[in-house]
Amino acid sequence: MVWHEIRDPADPELDRLAERYGLHPLHVEDCRHRNQSAKVEENESYLFAVLKPVERGEDGDLDVGDLDIIAGSDFVITVEEHTGPTLRKVLDQIRGTAAGARPDQLLYRILDGMVDSYLPILDRFDDAIDTLEDQVLEDPRPDVLERIFSTKRGLIEMRRVLANTRDVAAHLQRVTGGWVAADMWPFLRDVYDHLSRSLDMVEMQRDLLNGSLDIYLSSVANRTNRVMKVLTVLGTVALPAVIVTSFYGMNLKGLPGIDSPHGLVIVCSVMVLSTIALLFILKKFDWL
Amino acid sequence: MVWHEIRDPADPELDRLAERYGLHPLHVEDCRHRNQSAKVEENESYLFAVLKPVERGEDGDLDVGDLDIIAGSDFVITVEEHTGPTLRKVLDQIRGTAAGARPDQLLYRILDGMVDSYLPILDRFDDAIDTLEDQVLEDPRPDVLERIFSTKRGLIEMRRVLANTRDVAAHLQRVTGGWVAADMWPFLRDVYDHLSRSLDMVEMQRDLLNGSLDIYLSSVANRTNRVMKVLTVLGTVALPAVIVTSFYGMNLKGLPGIDSPHGLVIVCSVMVLSTIALLFILKKFDWL
Amino acid sequence: MVWHEIRDPADPELDRLAERYGLHPLHVEDCRHRNQSAKVEENESYLFAVLKPVERGEDGDLDVGDLDIIAGSDFVITVEEHTGPTLRKVLDQIRGTAAGARPDQLLYRILDGMVDSYLPILDRFDDAIDTLEDQVLEDPRPDVLERIFSTKRGLIEMRRVLANTRDVAAHLQRVTGGWVAADMWPFLRDVYDHLSRSLDMVEMQRDLLNGSLDIYLSSVANRTNRVMKVLTVLGTVALPAVIVTSFYGMNLKGLPGIDSPHGLVIVCSVMVLSTIALLFILKKFDWL
Amino acid sequence: MVWHEIRDPADPELDRLAERYGLHPLHVEDCRHRNQSAKVEENESYLFAVLKPVERGEDGDLDVGDLDIIAGSDFVITVEEHTGPTLRKVLDQIRGTAAGARPDQLLYRILDGMVDSYLPILDRFDDAIDTLEDQVLEDPRPDVLERIFSTKRGLIEMRRVLANTRDVAAHLQRVTGGWVAADMWPFLRDVYDHLSRSLDMVEMQRDLLNGSLDIYLSSVANRTNRVMKVLTVLGTVALPAVIVTSFYGMNLKGLPGIDSPHGLVIVCSVMVLSTIALLFILKKFDWL
Amino acid sequence: MVWHEIRDPADPELDRLAERYGLHPLHVEDCRHRNQSAKVEENESYLFAVLKPVERGEDGDLDVGDLDIIAGSDFVITVEEHTGPTLRKVLDQIRGTAAGARPDQLLYRILDGMVDSYLPILDRFDDAIDTLEDQVLEDPRPDVLERIFSTKRGLIEMRRVLANTRDVAAHLQRVTGGWVAADMWPFLRDVYDHLSRSLDMVEMQRDLLNGSLDIYLSSVANRTNRVMKVLTVLGTVALPAVIVTSFYGMNLKGLPGIDSPHGLVIVCSVMVLSTIALLFILKKFDWL
Repeated sequence: MVWHEIRDPADPELDRLAERYGLHPLHVEDCRHRNQSAKVEENESYLFAVLKPVERGEDGDLDVGDLDIIAGSDFVITVEEHTGPTLRKVLDQIRGTAAGARPDQLLYRILDGMVDSYLPILDRFDDAIDTLEDQVLEDPRPDVLERIFSTKRGLIEMRRVLANTRDVAAHLQRVTGGWVAADMWPFLRDVYDHLSRSLDMVEMQRDLLNGSLDIYLSSVANRTNRVMKVLTVLGTVALPAVIVTSFYGMNLKGLPGIDSPHGLVIVCSVMVLSTIALLFILKKFDWL
Repeated sequence: MVWHEIRDPADPELDRLAERYGLHPLHVEDCRHRNQSAKVEENESYLFAVLKPVERGEDGDLDVGDLDIIAGSDFVITVEEHTGPTLRKVLDQIRGTAAGARPDQLLYRILDGMVDSYLPILDRFDDAIDTLEDQVLEDPRPDVLERIFSTKRGLIEMRRVLANTRDVAAHLQRVTGGWVAADMWPFLRDVYDHLSRSLDMVEMQRDLLNGSLDIYLSSVANRTNRVMKVLTVLGTVALPAVIVTSFYGMNLKGLPGIDSPHGLVIVCSVMVLSTIALLFILKKFDWL
Repeated sequence: MVWHEIRDPADPELDRLAERYGLHPLHVEDCRHRNQSAKVEENESYLFAVLKPVERGEDGDLDVGDLDIIAGSDFVITVEEHTGPTLRKVLDQIRGTAAGARPDQLLYRILDGMVDSYLPILDRFDDAIDTLEDQVLEDPRPDVLERIFSTKRGLIEMRRVLANTRDVAAHLQRVTGGWVAADMWPFLRDVYDHLSRSLDMVEMQRDLLNGSLDIYLSSVANRTNRVMKVLTVLGTVALPAVIVTSFYGMNLKGLPGIDSPHGLVIVCSVMVLSTIALLFILKKFDWL
Repeated sequence: MVWHEIRDPADPELDRLAERYGLHPLHVEDCRHRNQSAKVEENESYLFAVLKPVERGEDGDLDVGDLDIIAGSDFVITVEEHTGPTLRKVLDQIRGTAAGARPDQLLYRILDGMVDSYLPILDRFDDAIDTLEDQVLEDPRPDVLERIFSTKRGLIEMRRVLANTRDVAAHLQRVTGGWVAADMWPFLRDVYDHLSRSLDMVEMQRDLLNGSLDIYLSSVANRTNRVMKVLTVLGTVALPAVIVTSFYGMNLKGLPGIDSPHGLVIVCSVMVLSTIALLFILKKFDWL
Repeated sequence: MVWHEIRDPADPELDRLAERYGLHPLHVEDCRHRNQSAKVEENESYLFAVLKPVERGEDGDLDVGDLDIIAGSDFVITVEEHTGPTLRKVLDQIRGTAAGARPDQLLYRILDGMVDSYLPILDRFDDAIDTLEDQVLEDPRPDVLERIFSTKRGLIEMRRVLANTRDVAAHLQRVTGGWVAADMWPFLRDVYDHLSRSLDMVEMQRDLLNGSLDIYLSSVANRTNRVMKVLTVLGTVALPAVIVTSFYGMNLKGLPGIDSPHGLVIVCSVMVLSTIALLFILKKFDWL
């Protein structure tokens, strides 16, 4: 079996191979345009698959590329429309053992390596959501919102990649034309199970993330409520003092106790006691 | 093959063609009433398809029209119930190569051109949502709500067009009566994949848009919370000052320190220190 | 063909017809109890269908009735369990052309007329939602909530009627026993398409209505935020003025500048400048 | 046909009947443990069905019991794992006419009676939701939340009972082994339709209830907004008065107009006019 | 029948058994890696099943392990990748009766015991949600949010376990190769019903939990509204008093009644009456 590795879709080598193996023009076009969905198509001469290598950048954003695989009876062509370190590592590991393998085995190994490479990305999402949950409860600041948003975007993208790749794994088990031998089916089912578990995980993460947005809103409402209470307590404390002191600031005659030597003590007692009474009433009727 | 292009559904030419090719009265009626869904119907004499050209106006609103296509064994009739620049461009490009084409090839080319014309519209939605996301976090003003609303409306409409057109692409692959030759199937599957990707994209955009509405609400709640805190700090700063100054404004005898030369300094110190103490307490118990 | 029109389900004529044509007791019972769902049932003697005429009252509320149709080989019985002007008009228009029609043609015409009569109701919903959207953004008052609520109720009801009637249109195309001739199928498919479009429309309206409730909440939150800001600006403006004036209201000795002729000017400058400084600080740190 | 009515699942009579008719141990166990779902199972000797009688308590809470029915070729055993007045009434009515009936007819009558007994419960939900809707708009108090919550709980339970019972009605129409005669099918379809309508109703009620919770939140937000406005108007009215009066309370020299006989009139005019101007400005810029 | 119990997946005994019974390498690998989903797979030599024992820790968190079961014609191998007290108890109970059992009977008993062990966990969730509901209405504090969150996490996990285990129970009824005898089917259906009821219960719990989060938000909004009202009443009470007292604190000439002996009484009456009038007006127009 020959493995043609094309690292640049613009490489004219692809055209030569297309002629040699009779590739369908639409498939050559697919190889040259990124942003295909993961998919698999068979015809009488070969099997055409698109896989989606995913890189996670420094800033946590996902970079989703295309890896096109054409598997015939005695050849495999891979076209890399994206060359990040993750994909590189997967392909390098496989190259060592590719020599005696059949085309369908090589295809399975690439698929399996790709699917394994998704796991650390999902684990990073798990960590990110754990952190977000804690921050949302302890310190719901606006930048948390921003990170909830970008994590959501990442999960939506990841879910799409996983769901389509799972369809590829399912499709490969019932491909016609003998392109995939029956002894590969348990392995493909294993990949399928792996992807189903990953999808379950993403759904659970989405659920938790949506929950954390609700919690954010509740948490902010809570804090506003608490600030309001502080303000109201301040107002309650101020009210009697302000009214009483202003009362005795009036330039009117006959203010009670104004000439008494105990006036001040009495007035202060009235202020303090009415403040306490007010706070007690508010507390008692659960108005605060 | 003859291509009859009818640009005005009221054109009596349509009636003449209806008689000549034996068109079903319901199909002629469909050609004359806009707001059909994209669909395809076959009978023993021809294939009847409705496609939906979409124009994006200056103000971002979508204008969705109807293009009716009747493809027989050796003729194609197109009825334009909408004539925007996008549809015009698609049809003009096809006309050049239509001469030697079969009816099903012409139908495919129109469908493909139409589907390609949806892409820039979806890209514009992407841009709009990116802008909305930023504004929602940085400056959640009411007019952002209005734009979220109108974008949502556009996405709902676009999703309907894409979903129905995808059904058309699927249906054309299993049409009976030989109206579509088998060599067109890979091309139709390509269109189907393209539309599926576009639908995925719209779903993702809807998800993000709904998220941005939640973020909007959270963002406003956040700002209200911040304004409340400012108000409460103002109240906290004012409280001791107002109570103390009002206290010494009373026309009562024996106010402490009123005759002392250091009275003012002591009173001011009390004010400042009690304010600081109050702010410290609020901060310490995380009430602010 | 004979068309028996029964306008009152309690009419004993119905019993006579039941005996004459061998109607199933359950069907006679159905004719006499409103609030059936739209449905169609066939047996060896006839086809039994329930359609749902809908009237829109002055107050916008929907009044959903029942129209039972029994179509045999050479007779049609219609039982009106509701007599609004809309149903009246539909039946009157059909009566003129009923003479030479077959039972299945009559059934189709009634169904078609009924489905056409739903259109103005959906258009009224469109108008109502447009108005609600504007009000929600411009003037989110409580009575808007009430109207959102009642519109939602109407859409839920309408969706149920449309979905069940669409099932009727689908079922009539695959009815056994020859009660519906094959030449009616394109017409029934047309009705089916019409109902699908109407359902799409109702779904879109529901989507927009739910959106408008979210917008309402956001809009009110926004307004509360704005009112809070006004209150906080008032507090900010008042704070220095109140503290300074109260300060100089104290009956203490040695208040700075109290004996100076420029005292007033200096004190006023301090008030105004500290207010400006405070507003400037709040604005600068985006706390307002 | 013999009808064995067992009113207490612990009755040893059940064991005797189990032996006599060869009941499967799992079915006997099911008869003795409440909280089965409604279901139907057939084997070579009999048909085993579980139905769910529902009682509505004084406090509006639902009490859902089990009624197990075993229908053989010439016997029916009913085991009541719940004895409320509703179930009692249903069975009493049937007993009168049970004499000449076949086992499947008896089963149908019990099922039909049970399904009819659900209707008043759903009507009570309708009333409860109507009341809740009004209260939510007019007087959104916390106890309304509690009732929304408990109504929701009831609807969730009711939906489960209805959905499972509908599956029973569907299953009974395609039961193998001849346990249900074909002449019962129209009656079972009638029950099925009835249950479908009830489920539609419950879904609609759930939709409205969820809506009323949203409305509650909007309604409270609205009221908070209104209270804020009142507070802000109070602040606006107080601001000029407090600043001006405090200004003239200062012990400073040269306060303008302090010695003029018209001082008071001018000062009061300034207060009133600046208050009016302030309110006018807030209104004009729609800040209030 | 021989039952090989392996309590440590790293045990080399597993390799010996793998060789002896010809286990597929993928299955041995599955036995050694936790976090498989519950599943069942058959091949020509044996049946491979993964079950999920669940422990509930002191803190309410779930610990979900793996139990791998390989059932051949005359042997059963169980591999415990988790050894909590619950799993221990289930296996100990079964060991006593395992002697004369067939492999499929043993498999059923383990499955049945596992499913029974889920019930107390679900009951604990019920209790937790009841408590949360009460707290959310009576005292919506932030730690309630945290518990809603962790309960939600637990339910999501539990639902996944139940759904996958139910698929196992369904799959076992239609396993090919005779690994499960037909007399086990009613028992497996019983387990399936049991799991369906548990899933219903979890869905209901999730529904209630989501509801309780909405109620939380409404409850906090309510309390904020109440605090606002208290603050506004305080402001309303203070307003006339502050304005009037400050008015008479002005150092202006000609303040009305300043020299009258009844001045104080009149001024106080004005204050009290205007406060009452203000509160009355706010109440009357429902502004408070």
